[in-house]
Amino acid sequence: MHDITVDFLKEEDYACDIMIEGLPGVGQVGKLVAEHLIEELGAEKIADIHSIFFPPQVLLSETGVAYLPSNEIYRYEGENHSIMFLVGDFQSTSSEGHYLLTDTYLEIAEKLGVKRIYTLGGYGVGHLIEDIRVLAAVNDEKLKEEVENAGGIFTANEPGGGILGASGLLLGMGARRDIEGICLMGETSGYLVDPKSSNCVLSILSKLIGIDVDATKLQERAEEMESFVERIKESEKSTSEEELSYIG
Amino acid sequence: MHDITVDFLKEEDYACDIMIEGLPGVGQVGKLVAEHLIEELGAEKIADIHSIFFPPQVLLSETGVAYLPSNEIYRYEGENHSIMFLVGDFQSTSSEGHYLLTDTYLEIAEKLGVKRIYTLGGYGVGHLIEDIRVLAAVNDEKLKEEVENAGGIFTANEPGGGILGASGLLLGMGARRDIEGICLMGETSGYLVDPKSSNCVLSILSKLIGIDVDATKLQERAEEMESFVERIKESEKSTSEEELSYIG
Amino acid sequence: MHDITVDFLKEEDYACDIMIEGLPGVGQVGKLVAEHLIEELGAEKIADIHSIFFPPQVLLSETGVAYLPSNEIYRYEGENHSIMFLVGDFQSTSSEGHYLLTDTYLEIAEKLGVKRIYTLGGYGVGHLIEDIRVLAAVNDEKLKEEVENAGGIFTANEPGGGILGASGLLLGMGARRDIEGICLMGETSGYLVDPKSSNCVLSILSKLIGIDVDATKLQERAEEMESFVERIKESEKSTSEEELSYIG
Amino acid sequence: MHDITVDFLKEEDYACDIMIEGLPGVGQVGKLVAEHLIEELGAEKIADIHSIFFPPQVLLSETGVAYLPSNEIYRYEGENHSIMFLVGDFQSTSSEGHYLLTDTYLEIAEKLGVKRIYTLGGYGVGHLIEDIRVLAAVNDEKLKEEVENAGGIFTANEPGGGILGASGLLLGMGARRDIEGICLMGETSGYLVDPKSSNCVLSILSKLIGIDVDATKLQERAEEMESFVERIKESEKSTSEEELSYIG
Repeated sequence: MHDITVDFLKEEDYACDIMIEGLPGVGQVGKLVAEHLIEELGAEKIADIHSIFFPPQVLLSETGVAYLPSNEIYRYEGENHSIMFLVGDFQSTSSEGHYLLTDTYLEIAEKLGVKRIYTLGGYGVGHLIEDIRVLAAVNDEKLKEEVENAGGIFTANEPGGGILGASGLLLGMGARRDIEGICLMGETSGYLVDPKSSNCVLSILSKLIGIDVDATKLQERAEEMESFVERIKESEKSTSEEELSYIG
Repeated sequence: MHDITVDFLKEEDYACDIMIEGLPGVGQVGKLVAEHLIEELGAEKIADIHSIFFPPQVLLSETGVAYLPSNEIYRYEGENHSIMFLVGDFQSTSSEGHYLLTDTYLEIAEKLGVKRIYTLGGYGVGHLIEDIRVLAAVNDEKLKEEVENAGGIFTANEPGGGILGASGLLLGMGARRDIEGICLMGETSGYLVDPKSSNCVLSILSKLIGIDVDATKLQERAEEMESFVERIKESEKSTSEEELSYIG
Repeated sequence: MHDITVDFLKEEDYACDIMIEGLPGVGQVGKLVAEHLIEELGAEKIADIHSIFFPPQVLLSETGVAYLPSNEIYRYEGENHSIMFLVGDFQSTSSEGHYLLTDTYLEIAEKLGVKRIYTLGGYGVGHLIEDIRVLAAVNDEKLKEEVENAGGIFTANEPGGGILGASGLLLGMGARRDIEGICLMGETSGYLVDPKSSNCVLSILSKLIGIDVDATKLQERAEEMESFVERIKESEKSTSEEELSYIG
Repeated sequence: MHDITVDFLKEEDYACDIMIEGLPGVGQVGKLVAEHLIEELGAEKIADIHSIFFPPQVLLSETGVAYLPSNEIYRYEGENHSIMFLVGDFQSTSSEGHYLLTDTYLEIAEKLGVKRIYTLGGYGVGHLIEDIRVLAAVNDEKLKEEVENAGGIFTANEPGGGILGASGLLLGMGARRDIEGICLMGETSGYLVDPKSSNCVLSILSKLIGIDVDATKLQERAEEMESFVERIKESEKSTSEEELSYIG
């Protein structure tokens, strides 16, 4: 068994010039945006990624069918752009896994010809907020003006600790492969799934990629997600008990 | 030394069409059921599995003989079915280990010709309960009806966080090898070994595999287990102290 | 760099029939006994073991000279027995490391011709005690009588959680190499270095190996050790701070 | 992808006789000294080190440009000495990583011909102090006199727990490659970045390497660093939330 397995669903030579990452993170802000775009644009799933770095469990569909956690690659063929989407159930459970998974994502992106990566996430401020800013980071100075014109905000000291997980590493490790990287982070409390923050990120992303999408469904998706998070909380109780009994 | 070692006790070509997993977990519900079946059916041990992913310790028999923690494969040759049982002392201490061990279990199952896996566990609800439901999950929609007819319950949002450890991964990773997977989880408080929950799981499993077994000994085994758990609690104190002294 | 490195100090074919392990553990009971024997018998150091599984630090001699943590093999050539001692600064920081280090210890033991291993440790009871029992475990039923005659006590449910670290794994993994294993655990509070408990273990071990040694120095060594432990406690404060600053 | 990657910026045969390590640690004492020397001496960057053992994130420049965490090698060609500096953003997140990274640092040092390593750090005492001592450790007895003459203090029991991370391992693992090692630790509270302690370390180091540098900028650098630490604290909140959502 390999630490990371990538399965393409078809034998095809896909091409994409843009990659959009929306893996789970603070407030599920990035996940909501990417999943919304996939749904609205009717992007097609082209690959599954499984890894021993994901939590050792299965997830359950509404109908009780268990499936292995995965990250997924979707593809949308548009007029101006062909977009590769990276979404999924989890990020890595270990530090090393984050690096190795991101390296795999970038190998796929390079193979498909991606020239620019947009990574989407939330920026947890620890309290509820009214006016949501979308903080931005780039992996090349020359990208700033374009992002600022679209409404992304650069500040001298936020987020101070840097950007964690795939959203950050795709920029840092992408630069080493000469792939442009832009990270958009919607401010969010960090305590709840935050569709409002996702909407702010979506509007700026739309300007940047020049694709306009209907945002009404995003609100619905967010409500589903909220109940999902409630169920997660439930299960975390039983998890800790189970782990106890392993040791015992 | 290999990360995982499988030792077959005899040079034989075993065949099994069904696998039943009952490794330690919430309330030891699955473990009790599988061990009870092994005893009642007189299943024969055919293989030992040792791994660096198990806790770094030995266990002691009642007579003070130390033995390395292991997972064990038992086999029962019945009229309708030949069954492979997976039981043992521990599950993995690491996330990655869970995946790698489960992959090994599935390699053995495939080698023996297993077409369907039943994984047994407990579903911790965090409080004592009167009417125990047996929640079910499958790795293929088409298995649901059969399980529901036997009394397994599918709900839209339990267990919300998915199924952890081998009981879950055997379904998810089994599907990738085209092996049918059914998980039965007896509701339990999660605080105590729960033979009552095990009995509920056993009755549904018996219907599914068409084998009827006497359940009286299950109660006895449970009481033994209860005292065992008490001893575990004792030792966990000294464990944490020992670990401290390693660091010091 | 190898995960584990063994350096023999001389090019020699050493032979030993007995191995005695006294690595750090609860109350440093085993460590004190083994180090006392090495000193009293004038055992000679024959090998150094370094590993990435030890804590990532150096230790300091009284004179301020830093040295890499190591496990050490000493050898004593007696009339009846030639003994291999395993002592050292630390045990593994990871579960997997415990298995891999123990495997290395056993490879050395097998190479030197060891037929029997004595592992020494403390059994933490969580409170101060007057009459110290020495609990015992073996990896082969046939060894019990000999150990009981020497004063080792076997009980049905102590230590309930098994034996942790090298003292346990040497028995369990040794059995798989057909090496006899006996573990002696002196009762101790678990809060302090416990020379009194070490004396009890020493007296039983002496009977078993048929070697009588003066025990007066053991008390002195224990006092040194006590101040050492105080210094450890000091440093653990700064450790946690340093680790914080790594993350920060 | 390799666990550790070293990229030299030019194809050149660099030579250095001295290495100075100032990676992050208690009070950033060593980091401040090394960075100050690099600035004052105009040392030139010659290599980048990236690793999966660093935290899985990117850091952000004041202008919002993301960069992958790295350790860096700088070089200064002086009259008496050619110095290799090791500085960087983080140390390893895992025990094993500390050993493997230090082994890489030493391979580079050996390749450049380094004969002596100075490692710089802080010694956390847990309270604010007036008269800062600079504690010292060496990896060879014969180095003590020279260090004492320069003002380094050797005590019988400080730091009691040894020296953690690269500052310690470079001494211990360096000795195995016959490279002299001297560690200078400025006393510090351990709660704050401590330029005052760095100044004490710098003055002793200057004597030892026979290079005098202006210390005025060190104070300025320290103030920048203080605000940096504040930002780190901010981000640590959001980190823990993000990690939660990974598990969820």
